[in-house]
Amino acid sequence: MTELRGVGIGLGVAQGPVARMAEPLPAPKDAPSERSVDEESSRVREAVAAVARELEERGNTAGGAARDVLEAQAMMAEDPTLEAEVDTRLQAGKTGEWAVYDAFASFREQLTALGGYLGERAADLDDVAQRVIARLRGVAAPGIPDPGHPFVLVATDLAPADTALLDLDKVLALITTEGGPTSHTAILAREKSIVAVVGAAHAASLTEGETVIVDAAANLVVTSPSDDELARALTRAADRAAAASAPITPGALADGTAVPLLANLGKPGGASEAVELGAEGVGLFRTEFLFLSSSSAPTVEEQRTAYTELLAAFPGKKVVVRVLDAGADKPLPFLNDAHEENPALGLRGLRALRASEDILREQLTALAEADAATRRSPEGPADLWVMAPMVSTVEETEYFVSLAKDYGLKTAGVMVEVPSSALLADRIFRHADFASIGTNDLTQYTLAADRLLGSVASFQDPWHPAVLRLVREVGAAGAASGKPVGICGEAAADPLLAVVLVGLGATTLSMAPTALADVRATLLTHTLDDARRIAEAALAADGAATAREAATAAASSQKAAEQ
Amino acid sequence: MTELRGVGIGLGVAQGPVARMAEPLPAPKDAPSERSVDEESSRVREAVAAVARELEERGNTAGGAARDVLEAQAMMAEDPTLEAEVDTRLQAGKTGEWAVYDAFASFREQLTALGGYLGERAADLDDVAQRVIARLRGVAAPGIPDPGHPFVLVATDLAPADTALLDLDKVLALITTEGGPTSHTAILAREKSIVAVVGAAHAASLTEGETVIVDAAANLVVTSPSDDELARALTRAADRAAAASAPITPGALADGTAVPLLANLGKPGGASEAVELGAEGVGLFRTEFLFLSSSSAPTVEEQRTAYTELLAAFPGKKVVVRVLDAGADKPLPFLNDAHEENPALGLRGLRALRASEDILREQLTALAEADAATRRSPEGPADLWVMAPMVSTVEETEYFVSLAKDYGLKTAGVMVEVPSSALLADRIFRHADFASIGTNDLTQYTLAADRLLGSVASFQDPWHPAVLRLVREVGAAGAASGKPVGICGEAAADPLLAVVLVGLGATTLSMAPTALADVRATLLTHTLDDARRIAEAALAADGAATAREAATAAASSQKAAEQ
Repeated sequence: MTELRGVGIGLGVAQGPVARMAEPLPAPKDAPSERSVDEESSRVREAVAAVARELEERGNTAGGAARDVLEAQAMMAEDPTLEAEVDTRLQAGKTGEWAVYDAFASFREQLTALGGYLGERAADLDDVAQRVIARLRGVAAPGIPDPGHPFVLVATDLAPADTALLDLDKVLALITTEGGPTSHTAILAREKSIVAVVGAAHAASLTEGETVIVDAAANLVVTSPSDDELARALTRAADRAAAASAPITPGALADGTAVPLLANLGKPGGASEAVELGAEGVGLFRTEFLFLSSSSAPTVEEQRTAYTELLAAFPGKKVVVRVLDAGADKPLPFLNDAHEENPALGLRGLRALRASEDILREQLTALAEADAATRRSPEGPADLWVMAPMVSTVEETEYFVSLAKDYGLKTAGVMVEVPSSALLADRIFRHADFASIGTNDLTQYTLAADRLLGSVASFQDPWHPAVLRLVREVGAAGAASGKPVGICGEAAADPLLAVVLVGLGATTLSMAPTALADVRATLLTHTLDDARRIAEAALAADGAATAREAATAAASSQKAAEQ
Repeated sequence: MTELRGVGIGLGVAQGPVARMAEPLPAPKDAPSERSVDEESSRVREAVAAVARELEERGNTAGGAARDVLEAQAMMAEDPTLEAEVDTRLQAGKTGEWAVYDAFASFREQLTALGGYLGERAADLDDVAQRVIARLRGVAAPGIPDPGHPFVLVATDLAPADTALLDLDKVLALITTEGGPTSHTAILAREKSIVAVVGAAHAASLTEGETVIVDAAANLVVTSPSDDELARALTRAADRAAAASAPITPGALADGTAVPLLANLGKPGGASEAVELGAEGVGLFRTEFLFLSSSSAPTVEEQRTAYTELLAAFPGKKVVVRVLDAGADKPLPFLNDAHEENPALGLRGLRALRASEDILREQLTALAEADAATRRSPEGPADLWVMAPMVSTVEETEYFVSLAKDYGLKTAGVMVEVPSSALLADRIFRHADFASIGTNDLTQYTLAADRLLGSVASFQDPWHPAVLRLVREVGAAGAASGKPVGICGEAAADPLLAVVLVGLGATTLSMAPTALADVRATLLTHTLDDARRIAEAALAADGAATAREAATAAASSQKAAEQ
């Protein structure tokens, strides 16, 4: 047995054979072909046709939106203009690989220049070209592997495009060599309850087909496991499956202290799953989905319909809606300046809304109308709270809260995701009714490390004691003013970190609904005093890894003392 | 009298007639000319020749490096290839404006494609083309105005290229409508001791030639001043000139508490001016100049020569050298990945050096050799300290300090410019011999606002109480461990903020040498108890502007009590 360390996502354990995600192919060289033109031409035709069929088949299996994407790719592969472009190059004596590479690149440029829908499709051409070239070379196509049986996927990190095509029924677990606890892979793993260990650098040495145990709870990948180890892992997985189907109770600590467990949602359609999994309300409703799909802002009516659907799904429960958070990795053409050197430090969130105040006013109008509409509903109204993203000063807090109240919205607060807001939380609470800590961005800014950049992923860890200190500032300020402090970043979905956050003063936790069961189970094993002690242990550490270890040790010494 | 609010740089006051920086010209339209080809041709020849002569004259007046740049531009304007390109377009019946615009753009592309030295010159062509087109249109050339007499320059913000060409003898004061206290304009103003008010949005309404008072100490531009106001401003300016020539004493508070005043230097050549202005050593020696001018890292020998020259200029005095701070706005081809979405949150500073450790090891080698070489100097050795930029964790501190000691460098510390380092300062001091706070970046990360982005300049203010709280954390940790805490960001050059920083625990202040006199004079008017009280007043404020006002009020109430 060998252990490879990484960062486990959740508490799961799984086992199975490794399948590696193939790396992108090197670009073909522009050398003369040793084959005849006809020979090259028939090789390319065969490869293009095979890739088109494969894409269609994968589309049929995937269904839904993925099918449309894959069918469009299949059509592109067989586009006659593209075929003519390839032919011209073959006639000039080029290799099939180079002809495909160069013709696709040229076609891609033409599409990009057209802009609009076709321009957006241009990126897909790269994937198609890579598949055709891989087939010509007789190597595995880059991207998600398909070994024909369930597998443990090993990748550098998964891009959003990869995850869209991932057949989750076949994926037993995820291992990445790069990427931290807030990477796309980690977010996917939490959302879909997939066992995952991310940032396990040494996993690069795993070979195709070897059996591993992926132990997220222990932050480990175990290679060459013994039969005994495999059996124990199976038992743990079964126990955990049983816990997941345990009766759903309101979130609480072992001493009965209530810690409402809420859902992070991105669309009203996710509400029913969240309720089923025991969400006691919504701690973060992202409104970007209304804005991202079109080139202009949605109308008040479109927004009101969506918010009404959301509120109607949570009668009598708290629903925290975040106004539009555009900018940084989510730029919108009608709101953001595309030319920022550092968009994460630019005109984003509330800053951007203030610069286009009509959009904010329309959103608040729609929220107030949805609130009024559901107040007359027979099952009783939801408790609507609104909050602003990326608030960094007391002045911005005053601005947003007073604007929201002008529209009759009775509970208004702010996201704390910029260090300055955490440091001045006591003054922010003079104006805000509540605060919700966004741990992903708060970590990004506190450590000055881009949360989406692999080379600084090791800094992007919400366990870092500097981040925990800022959470404690907000917790203390909330307690002093008697106002709630929620957590809505990924950190709340890490069961032990959730305990630490409660120990630091968080009063509610919001997360992907699939993470609720693990967090609920872990909270029930600690009292508030335990949580505070575990938090102190983490705070006293020098770095993120040692904070996690210290908290783990403090939590297990407490359990040992009880037994 | 009307007052326009902005952010004053330094304590100066000045008055004079406004000259506005002309905005870039709109691009000419591709419309057929109404003039004959010969007519257009002679217009263009006249305009090109006039611009070339004007550039040459300006070069002769400016002298030095600026002359070389301007003469090269004049030669480019009359390049025969370019003339032929313009002619082709004129023959096709285009207007002179469009022919110049399009021919220069095409020539620019050719130069860019060549790369190297010629490629770098391509950007200058835009300036030349703009001048020729402005002349053809009979409007003011964009860029620095030249009204023929001393003037108060009003601009949106100054680019580094503008400031290089600015004739400082003619500039009475600077006013910008955008840009904060760390903008290029502000840095230039401090370096050259020019009176400036930046970020005065309403200054956009100032008209050419009107007389204004620029009152940096009061953060104001006064329009339509009375004779009495003008006379008082003159008196103040004369008093301040007298203070600047006051005897140079070591930096100290009114109660005798020593606060060594050090220089920020970017090249060894700046040492003699710094010594003349009373610098008691160097608080920040930036080493980027050695690296920026070439496509590969300098050799150990080249570096040793430069460091030896620096150390020899400060016998018996402290010299703090910062190892290479590349990345963000200072990328280096051999060190940084150019594809970061948010370079300010990327692999920069120590992170980048660690990824290319050879460069760091060579720099430490050269520093140790220079230290050894000057130790034998007859005037006695300098006291060399080394520090790393962009340190964000305790682990990085340990890494850098122990590596520096391996090379025999006896005093090693870190820059505190990331919030996490300030929050964990107590633990960082377990390893570092000293800390130096970089207030520019610390403010940027604490408020999550790009220091070089105009649209978020209002957030980029080191007076923000959240930044002051972080400084206090570092100050307290330094006091508890008995280790020095320097300030080397722009904040130290703001005299009242310098008092606040000392009140928060800073033990030395480092700044552009020209700022030393003002800071020295202001420190002498407050005791350490005063400084602490003034700092408390600033800390208790809600925002940057109110912190500055509270400190101003606390400082003047103390002075009033003394009188």
